Amino acid sequence: MDYRVEHDTMGEVKVPNDKYWGAQTQRSFENFKIGIEKMPKTLVYAFANLKKALAITNNKLGKLDDEKMGAITQACDEIIAGKFDDNFPLAVWQTGSGTQSNMNMNEVIANRATEIMGGNFRKEKLVHPNDHVNMSQSSNDTFPTAMSIVSVLEVENKLIPALNELIKTFGEKVKKFESIIKIGRTHLQDATPLTLGQEFSGYLSMLQHSKEQIEATLPMLRELAIGGTAVGTGLNAHPQLSEKVSEELTKLTKTKFVSSPNKFHALTSHDAINFTHGAMKGLAANLMKIANDVRWLSSGPRCGLGEILIPENEPGSSIMPGKVNPTQCESLTMVAVQVMGNDATIGFAASQGNFELNVFKPVIIYNFLQSLDLLADGMHSFNIHCAEGIEANEEKIDYNLHNSLMLVTALNPHIGYEKAAKVAKNAHKKGISLKESCLELGFLSEADFDKFVVPANMIAPKA
Amino acid sequence: MDYRVEHDTMGEVKVPNDKYWGAQTQRSFENFKIGIEKMPKTLVYAFANLKKALAITNNKLGKLDDEKMGAITQACDEIIAGKFDDNFPLAVWQTGSGTQSNMNMNEVIANRATEIMGGNFRKEKLVHPNDHVNMSQSSNDTFPTAMSIVSVLEVENKLIPALNELIKTFGEKVKKFESIIKIGRTHLQDATPLTLGQEFSGYLSMLQHSKEQIEATLPMLRELAIGGTAVGTGLNAHPQLSEKVSEELTKLTKTKFVSSPNKFHALTSHDAINFTHGAMKGLAANLMKIANDVRWLSSGPRCGLGEILIPENEPGSSIMPGKVNPTQCESLTMVAVQVMGNDATIGFAASQGNFELNVFKPVIIYNFLQSLDLLADGMHSFNIHCAEGIEANEEKIDYNLHNSLMLVTALNPHIGYEKAAKVAKNAHKKGISLKESCLELGFLSEADFDKFVVPANMIAPKA
Amino acid sequence: MDYRVEHDTMGEVKVPNDKYWGAQTQRSFENFKIGIEKMPKTLVYAFANLKKALAITNNKLGKLDDEKMGAITQACDEIIAGKFDDNFPLAVWQTGSGTQSNMNMNEVIANRATEIMGGNFRKEKLVHPNDHVNMSQSSNDTFPTAMSIVSVLEVENKLIPALNELIKTFGEKVKKFESIIKIGRTHLQDATPLTLGQEFSGYLSMLQHSKEQIEATLPMLRELAIGGTAVGTGLNAHPQLSEKVSEELTKLTKTKFVSSPNKFHALTSHDAINFTHGAMKGLAANLMKIANDVRWLSSGPRCGLGEILIPENEPGSSIMPGKVNPTQCESLTMVAVQVMGNDATIGFAASQGNFELNVFKPVIIYNFLQSLDLLADGMHSFNIHCAEGIEANEEKIDYNLHNSLMLVTALNPHIGYEKAAKVAKNAHKKGISLKESCLELGFLSEADFDKFVVPANMIAPKA
Amino acid sequence: MDYRVEHDTMGEVKVPNDKYWGAQTQRSFENFKIGIEKMPKTLVYAFANLKKALAITNNKLGKLDDEKMGAITQACDEIIAGKFDDNFPLAVWQTGSGTQSNMNMNEVIANRATEIMGGNFRKEKLVHPNDHVNMSQSSNDTFPTAMSIVSVLEVENKLIPALNELIKTFGEKVKKFESIIKIGRTHLQDATPLTLGQEFSGYLSMLQHSKEQIEATLPMLRELAIGGTAVGTGLNAHPQLSEKVSEELTKLTKTKFVSSPNKFHALTSHDAINFTHGAMKGLAANLMKIANDVRWLSSGPRCGLGEILIPENEPGSSIMPGKVNPTQCESLTMVAVQVMGNDATIGFAASQGNFELNVFKPVIIYNFLQSLDLLADGMHSFNIHCAEGIEANEEKIDYNLHNSLMLVTALNPHIGYEKAAKVAKNAHKKGISLKESCLELGFLSEADFDKFVVPANMIAPKA
Repeated sequence: MDYRVEHDTMGEVKVPNDKYWGAQTQRSFENFKIGIEKMPKTLVYAFANLKKALAITNNKLGKLDDEKMGAITQACDEIIAGKFDDNFPLAVWQTGSGTQSNMNMNEVIANRATEIMGGNFRKEKLVHPNDHVNMSQSSNDTFPTAMSIVSVLEVENKLIPALNELIKTFGEKVKKFESIIKIGRTHLQDATPLTLGQEFSGYLSMLQHSKEQIEATLPMLRELAIGGTAVGTGLNAHPQLSEKVSEELTKLTKTKFVSSPNKFHALTSHDAINFTHGAMKGLAANLMKIANDVRWLSSGPRCGLGEILIPENEPGSSIMPGKVNPTQCESLTMVAVQVMGNDATIGFAASQGNFELNVFKPVIIYNFLQSLDLLADGMHSFNIHCAEGIEANEEKIDYNLHNSLMLVTALNPHIGYEKAAKVAKNAHKKGISLKESCLELGFLSEADFDKFVVPANMIAPKA
Repeated sequence: MDYRVEHDTMGEVKVPNDKYWGAQTQRSFENFKIGIEKMPKTLVYAFANLKKALAITNNKLGKLDDEKMGAITQACDEIIAGKFDDNFPLAVWQTGSGTQSNMNMNEVIANRATEIMGGNFRKEKLVHPNDHVNMSQSSNDTFPTAMSIVSVLEVENKLIPALNELIKTFGEKVKKFESIIKIGRTHLQDATPLTLGQEFSGYLSMLQHSKEQIEATLPMLRELAIGGTAVGTGLNAHPQLSEKVSEELTKLTKTKFVSSPNKFHALTSHDAINFTHGAMKGLAANLMKIANDVRWLSSGPRCGLGEILIPENEPGSSIMPGKVNPTQCESLTMVAVQVMGNDATIGFAASQGNFELNVFKPVIIYNFLQSLDLLADGMHSFNIHCAEGIEANEEKIDYNLHNSLMLVTALNPHIGYEKAAKVAKNAHKKGISLKESCLELGFLSEADFDKFVVPANMIAPKA
Repeated sequence: MDYRVEHDTMGEVKVPNDKYWGAQTQRSFENFKIGIEKMPKTLVYAFANLKKALAITNNKLGKLDDEKMGAITQACDEIIAGKFDDNFPLAVWQTGSGTQSNMNMNEVIANRATEIMGGNFRKEKLVHPNDHVNMSQSSNDTFPTAMSIVSVLEVENKLIPALNELIKTFGEKVKKFESIIKIGRTHLQDATPLTLGQEFSGYLSMLQHSKEQIEATLPMLRELAIGGTAVGTGLNAHPQLSEKVSEELTKLTKTKFVSSPNKFHALTSHDAINFTHGAMKGLAANLMKIANDVRWLSSGPRCGLGEILIPENEPGSSIMPGKVNPTQCESLTMVAVQVMGNDATIGFAASQGNFELNVFKPVIIYNFLQSLDLLADGMHSFNIHCAEGIEANEEKIDYNLHNSLMLVTALNPHIGYEKAAKVAKNAHKKGISLKESCLELGFLSEADFDKFVVPANMIAPKA
Repeated sequence: MDYRVEHDTMGEVKVPNDKYWGAQTQRSFENFKIGIEKMPKTLVYAFANLKKALAITNNKLGKLDDEKMGAITQACDEIIAGKFDDNFPLAVWQTGSGTQSNMNMNEVIANRATEIMGGNFRKEKLVHPNDHVNMSQSSNDTFPTAMSIVSVLEVENKLIPALNELIKTFGEKVKKFESIIKIGRTHLQDATPLTLGQEFSGYLSMLQHSKEQIEATLPMLRELAIGGTAVGTGLNAHPQLSEKVSEELTKLTKTKFVSSPNKFHALTSHDAINFTHGAMKGLAANLMKIANDVRWLSSGPRCGLGEILIPENEPGSSIMPGKVNPTQCESLTMVAVQVMGNDATIGFAASQGNFELNVFKPVIIYNFLQSLDLLADGMHSFNIHCAEGIEANEEKIDYNLHNSLMLVTALNPHIGYEKAAKVAKNAHKKGISLKESCLELGFLSEADFDKFVVPANMIAPKA
């Protein structure tokens, strides 16, 4: 491979000549050959947005000249456009402050900006990674700021839309299934009836509550650490830097960001991300329940519950027609258990700060973004490949409903609890229907039975 | 022991004669001899409040006569006053719907109400546990409602006040320590300075953020399942029951409760409790960080950091004076790890609902209330036995500050980065102070050094 | 209340006069009013066993006279017999080394031993808590030693026997159900058949594997920290103390204990307890699967799978005969999720040691013993109230088996895959049986169909 | 892109023409666009080993002809050699049985084998994915078998060697540091002394115990599901298949594999993987403690403990010489918290089997292998970039040791406890040394003090 030599305060390093990164990135690349997990691309883009906002702000504050500012912002735009994806090779498992990813960003921007300004970055640095790109900053405030930015953006632009998709689908099912009456089940045991629409309204409400919960966490996630620099005091930063960068980012990303009211908190606690992820864990739990219900309700085709039908996406078996494995449910429940574990990792990591810094930042954001991507992709996939195609198996639903013994409840006002119980017990013992049992015992005429036992009257409160 | 015989639909059961509970409680008591964990008392009281609100509402709706209503509400008041604590013997590890604890409540209230009405509950039931106390209800809606009530009340009346206590103490420390400048530490390594007040403002901000986060979760926790009855449809309940009970509870408890907008959600998802507990996990993480900092900063007395002093509450060692074990920090960090584990349990349990019911309710509320009690008690104990008594060890703080090499940063504008680095390196190598090093190298006069190296100028942003 | 005054190195403390504990216990009692969780009784007994073994060893080493040794061992025996249960009032949430529980033990033994020797402990200490009961010891080595002792004893005497009970029951079911052929289910979908006995053999094998795994962890759990004293060096201890105490404990408890090969490890790592609890978590996962299967297989009575019947222990519903809520399954699955959370707590706590000590000992042993008790009690309860009474619902099993479409597999060798698929698809579409479909399509005679489609030939490998 | 059309039982699918996979792989690829996590390469290789062993066994059992067997085994060897890495594009988040990865393997092998046999797989299938490559198998037994194989191989070939590396390094440090006496610390407070070698022997012992624990789990991990086919009965498999494949794999991989004694267990429980991962979690906890100690002991350079020196791998700061951020410790502790979370995921997933199958297999093996890779890579990186280079800072160690007050313990036998305490208290109060204090109080001559206070006599038990 073709190499060039780059320098930092520790000396010379050989860097692949086709790459824009510099000495510090290279050192980290070599020193942390751990796992295959790289800093997420979305974090890289959020970081570039931050550097852009900083360059603009530093320019407005009179600290960075127009030309350098222009070159830096152009370089940032190119990074955001995905043109330098292969220039961010660093592992998640690096310095716990994310310093090396901050330097990776600084180095790539500086070299590309040098190029934009007409220089040859292999020979000269018209824009310096530390002095210009990292001006008035520290990894200790930029990295957590990038974490906040990417978290808010991904929640708003990826997670919520995927959630909305599924909310829409379930909303449609609620209407579509509103008049299909079915047996209820508690403790997995037959219980009083409800409509299939009501059952799906529970799923809908779960998703709506999860959405509300996630959104309720966003205000705190919008608080940015930027301006705290190395230890939270803001040494080397302009007093207005934090506010101005937050405003700039609000403009750039079209969503609100504010300066964190206490930078010492902002560098050491990740309670906001933990809080949002806790709400995402709640979503995972709700999705697990929904996906489990869907696969149970579609179980069969002959020896399961079989009350709904789901799309067949892959060959279940070449022998057994009707064997539709609920594969989307399975991937979604696997996602759910992953999110549960990630939540444990994030909580633990968030508790381990010391003094002026928490050095578990990369593992926190890695887990957060993995959960977010999996939930969003998982919901989207589940929606288009499964939820949208759910159909009621009305024949089976009806059979179960009328085969059930709990409809006997409706007879209490007419023949009294004791006789009603006899009807049910007799039916259970002999394996016959309630009506058959009732007629056999001579308690009611068939006409009366049919008049009294009406599931449709059992699915709502009554005054 | 003296026994009487009680009956339920399965037959006769012998019950201790001095107890107010009935057959179903006794069966559960005998069938679930698992562990030592009992249904929390606070849940019992919340349940009694609910039964009281239900009796009042059923009376208003014309379904329960005044005399029975009066007897039931009096019985509930007595339970809330703690007079029947030994009548709720059931294990956490029972039916997953909490049915048996609902029946325990119904039976004790019915028997005590019978007594209040002048009857002898050992012979007759003037108030019936199912027909009157459990009127228009199911365990499936009362138990989750009691969970919501106790959660809101305990958060507001126990957790937040304990949090406020600690917030007050740290607020005072922030002021008290505002002019004590000390060395900062990132990566556990010496860094640029800050004031001890700033450091404590980080703790204060952590607690304030945790409080905000916990409070942001309360609206969803106020939604009550009551009115859903067995499967969420509200069968056997009056259409206005849910709203009216919520209003009654709001009056009784002096905090807002509302009817859940979707009862199918309310019986199957515990996302609200999961969400609040997630915020409590965030508090646990913040407390872990604070308690760790406190014990590290007070470590020593000779070979640690020793920058603060904490109260000595127990003999550390009969030999080593000054050995003050940070025992309150230790109990608080143990609480924190317990809350982390409880959060995993709650998330997992919340994901395991099926169809119309989640049957992991007791384990969820047990873990929630354990976390809450431990956090509240732990913060209170930490506050009065440790935090309030924290003092700055100014001598050590000052020694560390001036012994530190990072103050050299202040020389950059005056002698240039390169010479400043030489000063620091020389000091590090020879183990001398920066000033000694600077004078030895002849870069500055002592007067100039003292003029330039002023930590107080390094603790804030500058325009 | 009646108080007496006791002294320690920090001064005077008022102690309830009817209690045997002293000043340090009292201080801890007052300083740690956190939660309701007390040091487990079984840990207290293990601790008393340890103190007894130490007294005997110190006597043999010539450091403790016969009379004091006799008084101490008698006091220990009385504690083990449960006579002083109300003298160990300390919270789990105390000093992280368990120092105060060690002192509680020392104080109670010293005062009781004084009494045994004819003294009045309210006035004089014929046996001193530190000098005699705690001779050659530190909390730092005694507490982890007591943790090891109680862990081994409870695993062997409580957990494994409960596991064996359930193993026995499932072993019997395997035999009893060996010739009942039923439909298999994968992905919750109908699959090829197996016997009910084979299905239960899976449960049996799960329990046997869990037992093997738990037992495989015991050797490391038998390593005792005793002899390490304050920091692991054994300062103030006799070089033979550790080995001799281990031998003594082996005699007293009738199970093997050995001196830990490295005391620095023994004071700072709780990898052995973490390891055993990991195996217990595996048991919890297996129990969750088994309990879930049992409740699903017994679901119904009409609209579930209904292939097995479980005992009815409590009234399910006064209306619906046959509604048997699987309450023992529910308590067992709640236990399982609790154990999962406890495992997270233990792992986290075990990782937080610093230098010569891990100060999360009480929370570790509390969670370990809670898990153990819940698993053991939960299995015993599940066994006697549910597993032993499981019956096959042969009628439903048979109906499902013959109603299933996957038996068509057996036709492949006779009419070819393509025609077999047609048979199945036609049956599925029309809702008829395979035989009906096959006859309708004219592929086989009824006699041939019956000859070829024999589930009993589908439940084992074939050469 | 260039496509060809492939078929399966559901119809036609367009497949990239340069790829060897077929219709089912393509469907899965399109239906599960979830996250970026792909099936781990090591799992692919283990799977290829399994398919090879199966081809050989089926040939020996007379079911597969020599030519096909030869072509299949060659194709497998090529896969294992990494030649087809880009032909396994499937996501972790797919069918929970891993069916689609089994089919991916079958399709690639079949097409490549066809090619090897001189055919054009784009037009004809000389080797059929189901009939030949998947002969006598089901995804339900091959996928868990591949999980077992990769787990054993990676533990033995990657994890244990990395652990051994670190064990070697710490073993050397124990020797190197055996005569350096230093202050001990418990509760973060100064305690009695030990040697730096003893302190490191604790780390060594931790790693040795973790190794022992991991190895103790291997026997159960060697049990293979193969031969169970679809539901565990072994339908369509030869009775000797399982044993023979296990023997073949033992030969191929040079490590022992055995046929699982109960295939119903093998398809539904993942207790063996959970057990091994539990031991890995214990290793993570131990590594966290070690890495924390290393960074604390090297904290400073001026205001920390500073008792050891670690290599400087990256620029800490351009200003502060001596600021060596403990970056390898940080990446290792991030790895540790990741493993903790993964353990929660695995335990949860392992508990969610139903009937004849657990459908959380991909998420289990993904987390297991991630933990394993991170631990192995993390230890290796920590070893070469940090542990090997650890040096004692003897000056600081010595200063701390002699500055400490707890050496006063040594005076007890000579001047009595009371006077010794006075010496210590006086020293603490005045901030002077013990010797100064003792001389000032006139209790001993300097010569006697020096004779009595000898730290080297305080680091071992004494008879």
